[in-house]
Amino acid sequence: MSEQMLVDLMSLFPPELTPAQLAKAKTVFFKELSLRCHEFYGGKMMTVPKAGLYGFNWFNVWYTPGVSKVSTTIREDSKASFTLSNRGNTVAVISDSTRVLGDGDVTPPGGLGVMEGKAMLMKFLGGLDAVALCVDSRDEHGRNDPERIIQFVKMVQHSFAAVNLEDISQPNCYRVLDGLREQCDIPVWHDDAQGTGSVALAGLINALKLVNKQLENVHIVFFGAGAANTTTARLIIAAGANPERIIMFDSKGALSRKRTDLETDPAFYRKWELCRQTNPHNIAHIEEAMQGADVLIAISRPGPDIVKEQWIAAMGDKPIVFVLANPVPEIYPYAAKQAGAYIVATGRGDFPNQANNSLGFPGILKGAVLANARHITDNMALTAAHSLAKYAEDRGIEPDRILPLMTDHGMYSMEAAEVAMQAVKDGVARRIKTKEEYRLQARIDILEARRLVHQLMDTGFIERPPRAIIEECLRLAVVAVS
Amino acid sequence: MSEQMLVDLMSLFPPELTPAQLAKAKTVFFKELSLRCHEFYGGKMMTVPKAGLYGFNWFNVWYTPGVSKVSTTIREDSKASFTLSNRGNTVAVISDSTRVLGDGDVTPPGGLGVMEGKAMLMKFLGGLDAVALCVDSRDEHGRNDPERIIQFVKMVQHSFAAVNLEDISQPNCYRVLDGLREQCDIPVWHDDAQGTGSVALAGLINALKLVNKQLENVHIVFFGAGAANTTTARLIIAAGANPERIIMFDSKGALSRKRTDLETDPAFYRKWELCRQTNPHNIAHIEEAMQGADVLIAISRPGPDIVKEQWIAAMGDKPIVFVLANPVPEIYPYAAKQAGAYIVATGRGDFPNQANNSLGFPGILKGAVLANARHITDNMALTAAHSLAKYAEDRGIEPDRILPLMTDHGMYSMEAAEVAMQAVKDGVARRIKTKEEYRLQARIDILEARRLVHQLMDTGFIERPPRAIIEECLRLAVVAVS
Repeated sequence: MSEQMLVDLMSLFPPELTPAQLAKAKTVFFKELSLRCHEFYGGKMMTVPKAGLYGFNWFNVWYTPGVSKVSTTIREDSKASFTLSNRGNTVAVISDSTRVLGDGDVTPPGGLGVMEGKAMLMKFLGGLDAVALCVDSRDEHGRNDPERIIQFVKMVQHSFAAVNLEDISQPNCYRVLDGLREQCDIPVWHDDAQGTGSVALAGLINALKLVNKQLENVHIVFFGAGAANTTTARLIIAAGANPERIIMFDSKGALSRKRTDLETDPAFYRKWELCRQTNPHNIAHIEEAMQGADVLIAISRPGPDIVKEQWIAAMGDKPIVFVLANPVPEIYPYAAKQAGAYIVATGRGDFPNQANNSLGFPGILKGAVLANARHITDNMALTAAHSLAKYAEDRGIEPDRILPLMTDHGMYSMEAAEVAMQAVKDGVARRIKTKEEYRLQARIDILEARRLVHQLMDTGFIERPPRAIIEECLRLAVVAVS
Repeated sequence: MSEQMLVDLMSLFPPELTPAQLAKAKTVFFKELSLRCHEFYGGKMMTVPKAGLYGFNWFNVWYTPGVSKVSTTIREDSKASFTLSNRGNTVAVISDSTRVLGDGDVTPPGGLGVMEGKAMLMKFLGGLDAVALCVDSRDEHGRNDPERIIQFVKMVQHSFAAVNLEDISQPNCYRVLDGLREQCDIPVWHDDAQGTGSVALAGLINALKLVNKQLENVHIVFFGAGAANTTTARLIIAAGANPERIIMFDSKGALSRKRTDLETDPAFYRKWELCRQTNPHNIAHIEEAMQGADVLIAISRPGPDIVKEQWIAAMGDKPIVFVLANPVPEIYPYAAKQAGAYIVATGRGDFPNQANNSLGFPGILKGAVLANARHITDNMALTAAHSLAKYAEDRGIEPDRILPLMTDHGMYSMEAAEVAMQAVKDGVARRIKTKEEYRLQARIDILEARRLVHQLMDTGFIERPPRAIIEECLRLAVVAVS
């Protein structure tokens, strides 16, 4: 039933809707459908045995008395825990749910839908097992305390190959990530920050090829200075951009040496670094900064109408516009294009150029895990960006196709292999293999994950949602924009 | 290949082995096979999508932008997290790995094999999803701090429907359980204690029927006074045993009012309760206590030769002997029977009468989860014991068959339904259904879990371990006893 495939989504809506109405209707449709389908399935991930159970005598192997040998072997050599348990392929997706997508603080259990979704993406795209852990980081005064998350992750790290931090509000997220990167013996990845940064950099590399400009020469405006955009800026600078041609804005204005509010607050040391590096002429207003700019990278708050059309109209030749807020970009792509944007990327899968973390983290974490890395270095994040960009380029890039698609599973195994090799080069790998060995293992794991999901659907373990649900959501979406 | 089924295990060993040699050989065999098979499969549990992915547009439903509606719905009503995510069917198996089966402190990752095994049992026997979380409970001085486990569980409780605490050394385990039962809004179950107690009580109920004695009249000796045995004693007393006919021993001797060492240590308040209730004549020695005793329940340390044959020989008519230490019982069943035991139960699946927690926790936790219970009351644990006993009795009990088998899947769904109904009666249920509705849901979930595992084996997702592994382990086992 093609409706359930949602393949030709546009055809499901009345043709007389304007682009703005259609964009809004799609958002309403996906939200209503999401609510009903989560309820229909009772969530979206489960745990399943991956080892043979040939009769009940096998519980003597998997449990007592046999398993005793596994316990004592790991006690003698803790590294054995990566090969004798599923630890070696399992990522913890940890959030305190204080900044979940565009919805802000949704209370600790409120992040479960997103974190379980992340676990689903990890499996389907990266062949990784993953567990959603939404934690309550509030202290006795009800304040979210980054130290509590640090303690939590340090306590639980022995059960996982890597930790994916997610949707932790700033400035706590910096403190948590930096604290944990130093103190943990497994990679701790902050996907909102490092993941978004890697993918945005990949998109930027290819977008610049299409407009024939060099990274070191372009003027870039960053709109929004949260964890995601400050880390994106840091990675783009590490990749070769000239910080003196960068201007970044937060909710109080432009970052510059004049921002004494940031200089004096140690929690914002990452932002202060950017204040010192960028915007040498202390430009204060976004309208001025956008004059002749080559690139806009906005990761601020859900749109539309956060980024103005006149800002884009004021940009230089063939403007590159990344508007990555979720769930609604700062300006809809059709509006950005009307204002003159040559290339537009968003975080959404229902528009072209999805610069979504989902292109990055499955391959990056798979690579880190395959190499049994102790950390994920910035080099590994840059390697992932170059790997993504090259994969897309090899398949042909154009303005509405600067990045690979999530459907390109070959990209994830290549990305994983190149990230793993970078881990080896950077001296953080504990499992040394050849690039081809890493790639093949990633490829097998990803293909098996997809085969499994398809088999579950084919054999009825996963039932189709009732058609009535989809029809009801379409009706609600059309009503919402009428 | 029948060898891989391990069905007729005895036939794999040389016929000339004595019972003692055969028992030891089996233990060695299972341990060696466990090590190799855990390595072969890389652990034994994985995470898998349980919701439809009909093309990549469905990621807009399961992830951004659609999932936003799930986040905000849970923010408005946290109960929705049980139905909109897999939280509603997921149990956290949490341990600090300080007392893992018979191996003591195996360092935090050392417990992963056991906890993942528990997750496997939860799925296969109870249709529950479960996640192994081995945590580091050590403070800055390297001491295991129960308060750290309490904080950890309180932080993570929002991601789970229930918590199964496991293999935490005493006295920390009491403090952790009692602290969490008061402070958590989901059931916190200490399986070593409450689980063992429920199953031991079930076995005792049926054993007494076979010897035609009444629970309120029998003299019971408890050997070992750790969390498991003290809780077993507490539940058996709650079920009707006369505490004045009970004598309990720990490593320092008999519990009684004379044990001022326990009176003055607040960490051992549970043991002090038993000192006050039991052993009114202050009997001090195990040999004296065993004279004429009807029942021995030992949960002390791995045997054999911890419980002496002469103790059993001194017992009353038709002695009932439960020797539940893992991985090796305090005395082997053949030796206990030689000494006069009429009924012997162990924790092992390769001997008759497995009084293993695996008969209890899958059904108890499934019932608690189906009722979305806030707590597991002692009544619920007693209900589980009576449910198990009745299930076995209905199918016919005899001295080597006092308990149901793990293969009786109908038992788990009945146990779950009766426990859920008790939760309703005790006012701790948040999801009220009829007993038959609970039973059918449990039955479907359990049957689907088993069907899934078999399908994974049939379709090659789970490969058979190489025959050479099994042959090598047999060889090692025979060498070890020769």
